[in-house]
Amino acid sequence: MPIKSLIRTVPHYPKQGVMFRDITTLLKDPVGLRVTVNELVHRYTPVKIDRVAGIEARGFIIGAALAYQLGVGFVPIRKQGKLPAETVGHDYDLEYGTDRIEMHVDSVAAGEQVLLVDDLIATGGTAEAACNLIESMGGGIVECCFVIDLPDLGGRRRLENRGQKVFALCEFEGD
Amino acid sequence: MPIKSLIRTVPHYPKQGVMFRDITTLLKDPVGLRVTVNELVHRYTPVKIDRVAGIEARGFIIGAALAYQLGVGFVPIRKQGKLPAETVGHDYDLEYGTDRIEMHVDSVAAGEQVLLVDDLIATGGTAEAACNLIESMGGGIVECCFVIDLPDLGGRRRLENRGQKVFALCEFEGD
Repeated sequence: MPIKSLIRTVPHYPKQGVMFRDITTLLKDPVGLRVTVNELVHRYTPVKIDRVAGIEARGFIIGAALAYQLGVGFVPIRKQGKLPAETVGHDYDLEYGTDRIEMHVDSVAAGEQVLLVDDLIATGGTAEAACNLIESMGGGIVECCFVIDLPDLGGRRRLENRGQKVFALCEFEGD
Repeated sequence: MPIKSLIRTVPHYPKQGVMFRDITTLLKDPVGLRVTVNELVHRYTPVKIDRVAGIEARGFIIGAALAYQLGVGFVPIRKQGKLPAETVGHDYDLEYGTDRIEMHVDSVAAGEQVLLVDDLIATGGTAEAACNLIESMGGGIVECCFVIDLPDLGGRRRLENRGQKVFALCEFEGD
């Protein structure tokens, strides 16, 4: 079952000229959801992982199902101000301005091995910030894992250049 | 394994006087995540369900793992403007002002049976809006399912009064 064929392209979202790769059509398909998660389960079952960290909000969907099936805990990486207890945060640059992601201080302990999950890697800014945040807590990053890679936007290269392993289930060129 | 014991209470979040029930401590615990999802899998395996609908953002976590394990599709219910393709929405009243939730128009087909999932039911405003939205698309609601019920806030009663079945894994009184 080709995962890529179940991903919908929405032209000109969120702005003119952008081809948005929409995984909701993959997730709503029972086989699509199952195969997507199972491919990741197959990849990561032999690997020592202590936590799956999912990036808000679509990273929660794949990340939580994967953590459940791997039998490890799930921790959310959220936008500023969304987590109720004590947090650590990391600021990162956007095209215009800056953004901030946060995790609970007790979500990763020193020495724990964390698998980072999101639906898509584009420029890699958020994923890189998430790596910095996890490492600032003493966690190690097993791999950065995505459903979709947009290689033309350079995110994979950016993460690899900082020493991360990167895996994506499919690629869309020409973005 | 008592699910309730792994839920953290954060006093005075998001405002003075509110005891926030935080499921992140449950989710990061491998056994906690596993038992939480498995209790719901056990409950819903015998039931005909076509879709699991999770409410942004914490409802994505439990909802996606549950959908995966039940072998059905997952559909997100999101705040306004977050979904890329054509949506239907429902406005609902908050304490001050109104809010709006949306689903993709193709996320539920007429006659499909939908299990609604969120982490917590308080006043039930969002869950009721989600029920209205799903029904407006011709979907039926199997049950409204939560990790936590705050019975003092009346959400369960509100949903039951409109004819919904409601299930929660645990309750916190005195909210």
